Amino acid sequence: MDAPQFADAGVREAVVTQLLARFGARASRAQALREHHSHGQNVTDAGLPDVVVFPHTTEEVAEIARLCHDARMPMVPFGAGSSLEGHVAAVHGGVSIDLTQMAQVLEVDADALDCRVQAGVTRVQLNNAVRGQGLFFPIDPGADATLGGMTATRASGTAAVRYGTMRDAVLGLTVVTADGRVVRTGTRARKTAAGLDLTRLFVGSEGILGFITEIQLRLWGLPETVEAAVCQFPDVASAVQVVISALQMGVPLARIELLDDVQMQACIAYSRLDEFRPLPTLFIEFHGSPAAVREQVETLEGLAADAGGSGFTWAARPEDRTRLWKARHEVTWANFAFRPGHAMIGTDACVPISRLAQCIAETGEDVARSGLAAPLAGHVGDGNFHLGILYDPASPGERAKAEALAEAVALRAIRLGGTCTGEHGIGRHRIHQLEAEHPEGIVLMRALKHALDPRGVMNPGKMVMA
Amino acid sequence: MDAPQFADAGVREAVVTQLLARFGARASRAQALREHHSHGQNVTDAGLPDVVVFPHTTEEVAEIARLCHDARMPMVPFGAGSSLEGHVAAVHGGVSIDLTQMAQVLEVDADALDCRVQAGVTRVQLNNAVRGQGLFFPIDPGADATLGGMTATRASGTAAVRYGTMRDAVLGLTVVTADGRVVRTGTRARKTAAGLDLTRLFVGSEGILGFITEIQLRLWGLPETVEAAVCQFPDVASAVQVVISALQMGVPLARIELLDDVQMQACIAYSRLDEFRPLPTLFIEFHGSPAAVREQVETLEGLAADAGGSGFTWAARPEDRTRLWKARHEVTWANFAFRPGHAMIGTDACVPISRLAQCIAETGEDVARSGLAAPLAGHVGDGNFHLGILYDPASPGERAKAEALAEAVALRAIRLGGTCTGEHGIGRHRIHQLEAEHPEGIVLMRALKHALDPRGVMNPGKMVMA
Repeated sequence: MDAPQFADAGVREAVVTQLLARFGARASRAQALREHHSHGQNVTDAGLPDVVVFPHTTEEVAEIARLCHDARMPMVPFGAGSSLEGHVAAVHGGVSIDLTQMAQVLEVDADALDCRVQAGVTRVQLNNAVRGQGLFFPIDPGADATLGGMTATRASGTAAVRYGTMRDAVLGLTVVTADGRVVRTGTRARKTAAGLDLTRLFVGSEGILGFITEIQLRLWGLPETVEAAVCQFPDVASAVQVVISALQMGVPLARIELLDDVQMQACIAYSRLDEFRPLPTLFIEFHGSPAAVREQVETLEGLAADAGGSGFTWAARPEDRTRLWKARHEVTWANFAFRPGHAMIGTDACVPISRLAQCIAETGEDVARSGLAAPLAGHVGDGNFHLGILYDPASPGERAKAEALAEAVALRAIRLGGTCTGEHGIGRHRIHQLEAEHPEGIVLMRALKHALDPRGVMNPGKMVMA
Repeated sequence: MDAPQFADAGVREAVVTQLLARFGARASRAQALREHHSHGQNVTDAGLPDVVVFPHTTEEVAEIARLCHDARMPMVPFGAGSSLEGHVAAVHGGVSIDLTQMAQVLEVDADALDCRVQAGVTRVQLNNAVRGQGLFFPIDPGADATLGGMTATRASGTAAVRYGTMRDAVLGLTVVTADGRVVRTGTRARKTAAGLDLTRLFVGSEGILGFITEIQLRLWGLPETVEAAVCQFPDVASAVQVVISALQMGVPLARIELLDDVQMQACIAYSRLDEFRPLPTLFIEFHGSPAAVREQVETLEGLAADAGGSGFTWAARPEDRTRLWKARHEVTWANFAFRPGHAMIGTDACVPISRLAQCIAETGEDVARSGLAAPLAGHVGDGNFHLGILYDPASPGERAKAEALAEAVALRAIRLGGTCTGEHGIGRHRIHQLEAEHPEGIVLMRALKHALDPRGVMNPGKMVMA
């Protein structure tokens, strides 16, 4: 497939002028706004768009797409900007389409346990909108991302072990194709055998196939009881064995997170978790009826004791629970405080849980050899863990070491039957890892991309081609 | 897109000769064998293949595909032959590739709760292979289908309310493309954000994109306790309300099946369920620890009592449970015994559960107007139900009435935000319904089909084109 040919400077200028005229205050080429839209959380991936537009409806997105497609102008969908893999950088310039003003919760059906939202609604906003009806949306990647962005990256996070990922939570979508057609995928039915699974094709498509403008989502009833506990272990393998046993027994854990000794050291200092020691630690959350939660707790306590774990430290009060999960979500800041002035590269390996202890042990040897600090936190129930590899950006040797370490982690995950990215996505910098993981599959992915976006205008430079 | 041009008679003959020479006793043009491979369970959809081949390996499938692709010879994957929608009919002739001799369970990992199987392994065979390790595979469409066929139709059945469908159970695939390339999709990781979701694209693809030759599947630990119960209701709406409430409360029901009064009448007679009355009935199964099951039962009994249901009739002994679920799986035969000599058309509507009672009530009015018998059985937790519309094949008026009724059911499901097919698939006769349900989506589906099979040789005449 040839590299796409994009609009030249004159055509770009004409498109920008047309968008400014059409969208008024909802289109802008102000430098600060364009810079804000040039990157996600990882600033090294910046790419400046020519203009930023804020549509309010699916039809407006379609109108922008038709204009840009005709002009061969690159289009980059933008949400909360919390992407970690450079998904939103306008690396070939073009139009950044910011969907955050499409922020309406369109419909909630408590009996069907579903809702329909515009793509710019964030997960916290949705939870605030449905809590009064006894409902919640559990998928929690940490950041208060938009649901459109979470759909586009197939996000998951801490509660996936119980509630699944965006792949599972999305029932259907409204998408706008590269050439501006509006397509409804899926239905409100819980399952369907009606044709190719367009919904799942767009979930995780990182903006390269089209825009996601509306999302039909599953909801869940708020659990009657929520309890959280912390348990510490002499080593990672013991902690992982507890999780394996619990999953085999079908214990419906709501969250189970692993933090290694280094991560705990960073978190104890940053989030003042003074009651804990710098040891491998599980943060666990239980959801259910009081009796069900009691039984889950007893089972886990038994398994932990067998594995040499400490007793459970309880976070029974909501404020204690909040403090605990806040600490979990603050690991990034804890890491920066742990090595002030350092930069960080995050990894996202995900392996079969039977290989997780081995994977973490071998990774630990790599880390030790590198001489870098690399705290580990992970969604252990899914076999997914993140290293926060800290390096001194002033030292060119350290950056290269950090990148080599990150690469080794991704390739090891692939070798152990897993994936280079459990939840962050491919974006800009994992394209070669995707090729390593799916050498034949990427050829099919490129064929699908070409079938739905033959001009290559949708989020170019991402996932399947540089 | 133009209709594909297939090999002429001379080329077909040459391909058949080549396959007979290459595969020896594992290729045949015997009339009886070809007739067996001309249809699934619905004989009216027959289409005779020119030859039947039984490959043993992915590489052999790829070899057949390369030969047929070069010759523009249609290829039709064949499994247990339990398809209800004409998926396996060789409507343009060609090669029927029977995968049932690819029946090895390749790997089972009890710690990771997953396995890898060849496509011809059936679900009963898999369960027999893993039970000794305390594991099971819960997805149960009734028939002892092959796991390849179940993947290709996105099968689900009675346990989907708890364990999901094949969409959820498949971690990764080995597929052979139309032109004979071997592609591994997915990984063994529980979740992935690595590129477009090729796995979900092939799950439910009904053989139109390529062959599924190996499947990486999730497994579950055998539940400690299994209990089953039956509860009868004055009307369908009361039964549905119990299910809605249970799902809102997060009760992890393992199976919950609705049979209407007519269906119960047929089942009581056929399966000798003499202890029951011909009333709308829920068949329920509970899985979990003894305490968890006890709690689920108490919750359901409370909800049922509030809704005017009878007390629970228990099937505590395994043989009673087997008898109960056998009766559920025998509804088709019960229906034929209910109207001896009649033929049957099955429907497969699936709607948001909040619309299910309305959908069934309106459907009941259609049935009454038609004058036909049409027992109803369904996977009520998913909003999915089947009518078995019985008609006298000797009466042309009755067949037309039955078809009109089936069509009305499918279109009503679409109107109520659902789908024309929850689990049977599109196959031959629902193409126009797929167009009604996804008028823009089918254009994308055709583009994807063309991208992966530009010659149109994979299972032609199905899903996206006649």
